[in-house]
Amino acid sequence: MILGRITGNVVSTIHHPIVEGRKLLVAERLDKNGKPTGGYVIAFDAIGAGYGETVLILDEGNGARQILDDDNAPVRSIVVGIVDAVELESS
Amino acid sequence: MILGRITGNVVSTIHHPIVEGRKLLVAERLDKNGKPTGGYVIAFDAIGAGYGETVLILDEGNGARQILDDDNAPVRSIVVGIVDAVELESS
Amino acid sequence: MILGRITGNVVSTIHHPIVEGRKLLVAERLDKNGKPTGGYVIAFDAIGAGYGETVLILDEGNGARQILDDDNAPVRSIVVGIVDAVELESS
Amino acid sequence: MILGRITGNVVSTIHHPIVEGRKLLVAERLDKNGKPTGGYVIAFDAIGAGYGETVLILDEGNGARQILDDDNAPVRSIVVGIVDAVELESS
Amino acid sequence: MILGRITGNVVSTIHHPIVEGRKLLVAERLDKNGKPTGGYVIAFDAIGAGYGETVLILDEGNGARQILDDDNAPVRSIVVGIVDAVELESS
Repeated sequence: MILGRITGNVVSTIHHPIVEGRKLLVAERLDKNGKPTGGYVIAFDAIGAGYGETVLILDEGNGARQILDDDNAPVRSIVVGIVDAVELESS
Repeated sequence: MILGRITGNVVSTIHHPIVEGRKLLVAERLDKNGKPTGGYVIAFDAIGAGYGETVLILDEGNGARQILDDDNAPVRSIVVGIVDAVELESS
Repeated sequence: MILGRITGNVVSTIHHPIVEGRKLLVAERLDKNGKPTGGYVIAFDAIGAGYGETVLILDEGNGARQILDDDNAPVRSIVVGIVDAVELESS
Repeated sequence: MILGRITGNVVSTIHHPIVEGRKLLVAERLDKNGKPTGGYVIAFDAIGAGYGETVLILDEGNGARQILDDDNAPVRSIVVGIVDAVELESS
Repeated sequence: MILGRITGNVVSTIHHPIVEGRKLLVAERLDKNGKPTGGYVIAFDAIGAGYGETVLILDEGNGARQILDDDNAPVRSIVVGIVDAVELESS
């Protein structure tokens, strides 16, 4: 899993039926300190994440399909948690 | 999923039978602002995408095979939507 | 598999039920000499790893689900061993 | 799928029985304009590709095993087509 | 598959039972000319590879599990051949 931040969404009128009715979130990838890395993923949402929120993203297709309970979902990335904090080791 | 833009197609006369009859699109990868990243994928088409169009590409083999409804498709990347707009968070 | 070092954990109050009750470790990726590479993964824990420990991380979903003995685990990365030493060839 | 060019092959006398009798091609990765990227893959051959030829390479294990019709093939990359041309959009 | 060179091994006293009894090799990744790329993988061994040897590494979990004949092996990378030579095209 990786950390991301929801920054937008994709609008698509023409698409494969299997995409129908699913919100397509744009999430920028974050490093472990919460800074954007420059990368992004387009992810489905399993928990109701909002713009600007830091989230936990599963980036593995078979696991993602099991969460959606849909063996046919065209999915690789899915938002599975809202991140309250990342507690880093201090020494 | 990732964002891409259709920039061409691959012509292949000699190929494995399983590729027969499928158009092979060249799609450059885009960042979340729609700028080319320098990377590309060769993708099948599930929706009828045209040259120059910004598209949504699923880059995961098992999901892609389910969209084509063909368990034997030699596929990793498939175009699943035409992107009208990417709405980015503004604050 | 890759080498990592546990540097923290993710706190998430709102999440998909399937994440419930699992500790989410932040592990920085290490190179083969044990130096951080700058990358990280968020991993589940199968062995009771503690902060600062160097660990062995499996980064492949199907294998990770088998270790957790849970076909539905939303997992790609899992800590499977604590590393005592990396013995490098000397000539 | 990606574009590659066959540049050599790997000679291996001692190997797992499952590799026996399969030619191991070295293919350098090409960008969408046909320039080498510096990367490479070692691929099996499903079509009879020759040295110097530009080819289409599937880089996904489950799809590759289906092409070889061998559920046990230790394969991730396989050559599935010879590329005659890459037609790029001109405006 | 990729080319690697065995440079060491990982010592782990505390680990998941499924790792028990398997040697964990450290293999640096090589480019197609046999030069180290800076990357590495930790791999299981299917053929009896020794330190300093150039090897062929399969980096795909499902194929790797089939080679070990163990559906539960926590594995992504496995050494499947010792490389005698890489024959590159000369023109």
